[in-house]
Amino acid sequence: MKLKNLVSQRFKERPADCLIDSHALMLRGGFMKYVGNGIYSELPALRRVTSKIEAIIREEMDAIDGQEVLLPVVMPAELWQESGRYDSIANELVRFEDRNKSKLVLGMTHEEAAVHLVREYGQSYQQYPFMIYQIQRKFRDEARPRAGMIRVREFTMKDAYSFHTSQEDLDQYYQKCYEAYQRIFRRVGIPEVVAVASDAGMMGGSLSHEFMLLNEVGEDSIVLCSECDYRANMEAAVNIVENVSSGAGSALEYIATPGCKTIEEVCDYFKVDVSAACKAVVYQKNSDDTYVVAFVRGDYSVNETKLRNLVGEELHAAEITADAPLVAGYIGPYGLSKEVAYYCDLSLKGMDSLVAGANREGFHLRGLNLERELGQIDYADIAKVKPGGICPCCKKPALAIQRGIEVGNIFQLGAKYSEPMHMQFAAQDGTMHYPVMGCYGIGIGRLAASVCEAHHDEHGPVFPMTIAPWEVHICCIRPDDEETKKAADRLYEELAKQKIEVLYDDREGVRGGQMFADADLIGVPIRVIVSPRTVKEDKIEVTTRDKAVQEMVEISESLAYIMKLRKRLYEEFD
Amino acid sequence: MKLKNLVSQRFKERPADCLIDSHALMLRGGFMKYVGNGIYSELPALRRVTSKIEAIIREEMDAIDGQEVLLPVVMPAELWQESGRYDSIANELVRFEDRNKSKLVLGMTHEEAAVHLVREYGQSYQQYPFMIYQIQRKFRDEARPRAGMIRVREFTMKDAYSFHTSQEDLDQYYQKCYEAYQRIFRRVGIPEVVAVASDAGMMGGSLSHEFMLLNEVGEDSIVLCSECDYRANMEAAVNIVENVSSGAGSALEYIATPGCKTIEEVCDYFKVDVSAACKAVVYQKNSDDTYVVAFVRGDYSVNETKLRNLVGEELHAAEITADAPLVAGYIGPYGLSKEVAYYCDLSLKGMDSLVAGANREGFHLRGLNLERELGQIDYADIAKVKPGGICPCCKKPALAIQRGIEVGNIFQLGAKYSEPMHMQFAAQDGTMHYPVMGCYGIGIGRLAASVCEAHHDEHGPVFPMTIAPWEVHICCIRPDDEETKKAADRLYEELAKQKIEVLYDDREGVRGGQMFADADLIGVPIRVIVSPRTVKEDKIEVTTRDKAVQEMVEISESLAYIMKLRKRLYEEFD
Repeated sequence: MKLKNLVSQRFKERPADCLIDSHALMLRGGFMKYVGNGIYSELPALRRVTSKIEAIIREEMDAIDGQEVLLPVVMPAELWQESGRYDSIANELVRFEDRNKSKLVLGMTHEEAAVHLVREYGQSYQQYPFMIYQIQRKFRDEARPRAGMIRVREFTMKDAYSFHTSQEDLDQYYQKCYEAYQRIFRRVGIPEVVAVASDAGMMGGSLSHEFMLLNEVGEDSIVLCSECDYRANMEAAVNIVENVSSGAGSALEYIATPGCKTIEEVCDYFKVDVSAACKAVVYQKNSDDTYVVAFVRGDYSVNETKLRNLVGEELHAAEITADAPLVAGYIGPYGLSKEVAYYCDLSLKGMDSLVAGANREGFHLRGLNLERELGQIDYADIAKVKPGGICPCCKKPALAIQRGIEVGNIFQLGAKYSEPMHMQFAAQDGTMHYPVMGCYGIGIGRLAASVCEAHHDEHGPVFPMTIAPWEVHICCIRPDDEETKKAADRLYEELAKQKIEVLYDDREGVRGGQMFADADLIGVPIRVIVSPRTVKEDKIEVTTRDKAVQEMVEISESLAYIMKLRKRLYEEFD
Repeated sequence: MKLKNLVSQRFKERPADCLIDSHALMLRGGFMKYVGNGIYSELPALRRVTSKIEAIIREEMDAIDGQEVLLPVVMPAELWQESGRYDSIANELVRFEDRNKSKLVLGMTHEEAAVHLVREYGQSYQQYPFMIYQIQRKFRDEARPRAGMIRVREFTMKDAYSFHTSQEDLDQYYQKCYEAYQRIFRRVGIPEVVAVASDAGMMGGSLSHEFMLLNEVGEDSIVLCSECDYRANMEAAVNIVENVSSGAGSALEYIATPGCKTIEEVCDYFKVDVSAACKAVVYQKNSDDTYVVAFVRGDYSVNETKLRNLVGEELHAAEITADAPLVAGYIGPYGLSKEVAYYCDLSLKGMDSLVAGANREGFHLRGLNLERELGQIDYADIAKVKPGGICPCCKKPALAIQRGIEVGNIFQLGAKYSEPMHMQFAAQDGTMHYPVMGCYGIGIGRLAASVCEAHHDEHGPVFPMTIAPWEVHICCIRPDDEETKKAADRLYEELAKQKIEVLYDDREGVRGGQMFADADLIGVPIRVIVSPRTVKEDKIEVTTRDKAVQEMVEISESLAYIMKLRKRLYEEFD
């Protein structure tokens, strides 16, 4: 198609509110347009990219015996009441009523609808295993949409659901899907994606992996071992701290600490390192606002996911009111009100002499020995891993932390949905069982933005051939020159005849520099420059968007050259 | 794929609540599943059909220079407030609030989002014309979903929007789109679809067409002339009635008509035909509940669309309260309270002597001559066409009325959206103008169901090759017979190698009759039967779903035979 007919606008200035490059470039290149908070429209160039991503995903899902279905965006509340999620999910789930006052929800994920679809089909063991998937729109009322297509409220998602008669069968299929995901990320141009163990979160279930594109703009923290293959999401990463107790600590003292409220101020005052302190972080339960205090060693911070899993319910940061049984700024494990539930992190185990809040206005404790003062304590792992931490796998102090963008996830769900939704199958011996499930998601728009984030330069995206909006971009410099225009037109027609996707820039009165800047912003892998200068020498110039290729080619050989280059660029990722 | 692995259930009994065959067959054949009122999930067999329909539509939209985009399902209310539709559309538009109390709507159509997307792009005449389209999910809170996929609340729709600098340019493009629609309906297997002029309804604008599949289960009435090409939706069809006045009528009399309330009772009492009566139909304005009376000749009925367009606002059937300025059962144009607005249909013009309500309890008038009694009257066309009516085109009394299913529509919108949404372009002379728009819709699921409704027998759908879920269905009768299984397996593999889409039924312990019944319910065009009986003769049996072909074919020639038959079946519609 001709660039002058492409519905899109390109502009030079980086929009002020764009925190990451892909967001800025996809706006500047005319790929997408902001409609509302976390809601975007896709312009033709991006729709071409997302269509190609969808096609690759369909191929890979079909290859592992997936069957494509389509589940509704709008669902009756009853369906989500069956699983219990109508009540357990907070504001992310949009609930509304129709004209007849029936309660409906917007699908943010489709486990319930998937079980509903196959509940009768899956009544006999003979039907198993099977997997269904869809590519469908979803809406999740995120509190903080950000970074363009990376975290939005409305998005297109490929979500797949597999059903099995045993955990062993699920394990096998899960591995197949894991490999299909690796193929998908390789084929769309980001083979560097790593799979990390993750917390299953509200999906429930046990084993789960997130596929992470390591990138400093990512909002997820990933823990990786430099000595072995251990990789985990920060939320799921096991934190190992080994304090060696000297067996004897100093005596417990109450010390007035006027004006010292933060852990740093207190430790400064005591002239000790923060690692000698017991830090308190206060939460409240969502259900009844009762207080929960997490104690960690002063140099660690609380892993809220682990804490939530331990407490067994949702928590939020506390607001300490005047009538609260807590002395804000002076909270510690010793002398804490019996009304307050508390949890001690493993990083406190074996510490002989801690500095901690005294639960008394203006006072801290020194010489606190938890076991001596409080008796036996059930320490739990509720802290975040730190760089240099001990790997739970190889036991070496080799953990590093990197940022990543989650581009996909796979979950083992067990019977979390089949059981409450009464999906059962008859085994060969006639006994009834709940099937175990897996679910497998990839956000299409986020994946497109992630590839752009991974592959761009200051001038625009550098799309891999497999998902580029077009394969070849022809710039005809000076189309008012008859010979030049004729040569460019001819090449355009020849390529079209070969079913090559060409974006053809034959705008009159546009200088070469502007054409190249536009081509950079659109990010097509192969660029062909036809100008009076090259045509005079019976040549055209062929370059790749990443500048790896920059070649003057005889016009008579240009079609063959481009076809061969195109093939090679496909092979890089396919 | 193997039938035994297909996620679907088939059953024999027609569900009690299915009013039309396609609905019953698509449930019985395992194509779809009910989720909630007007909400269905698509099972794999149907998703294959809708994917093929989508591919055909994409080809035809691309062929008329359409550029695919993706607009959001959830939109900020502000966007719909700009066009005024946030307030003008009633309950069909779902409105809700997000976690921050921002008002949102669910897209039931996307004119606003389309204008929003291209408002800046289309600032110069040089960008025009252009067309964008999407295939996207929509939700419309229909009062009465019915007939399975024919009228649902959530649906996938192809919606396209074109933008033009002049009415002439829109006219030209509109014609191109009209032809693309004819190609689409031919290619999906229903070339018999007719285009009818339609009322533009809430879309606004002037010229519009609906594409109708004539079918007795349709919910639309279509007026067709048997003598010329005139075709119109009942809502838009011009009604011509020519009464010849004798010039003199009888005198006006008040007659007591005890117990006569309906038009039929009154005419019975007077011993005249209903065509000699003036019938009153009472409405109330939605805005303020004031009464509006439509008078039509007794043998006609009111066309509410025409009446609404005439009144200029929404109406509903009246509830005549005790304090209303109306005498229920005795309403007529003479002596009617001045508080009540009324409209007289053209069918009353030239009637010398009418029977009508006297606006007095228990009395009717006889000998009513409207012009004599009331002075000049502005008659208007507010009645529905009747069979045998006069064609507004060729003027012959040749109008017939048929039922139809609307499978697509195209609208000329004018500046209905560009003007309130402030989309303007600079013309060559620098003056600013609002572009005119066209919009073009096709519901994917409804189209699939319509094809099924048009092409089925009592045993199941008869899918055209172009959109069939699979191309070939192999029934291996007695797969426990080694030779038979081997022959069937070989054919399955050979076809798969040729990229033919095969559904292979090799279930053990299932009798031939059951296999055929299942194949009928799935509706694949080519059926291949491999059984011990045929294999003994070195043959297979090839039939088409419509029974047009029923052939014993040598096994050695079967692949070539099937390939040829398949090609021919594609050519029927392609």
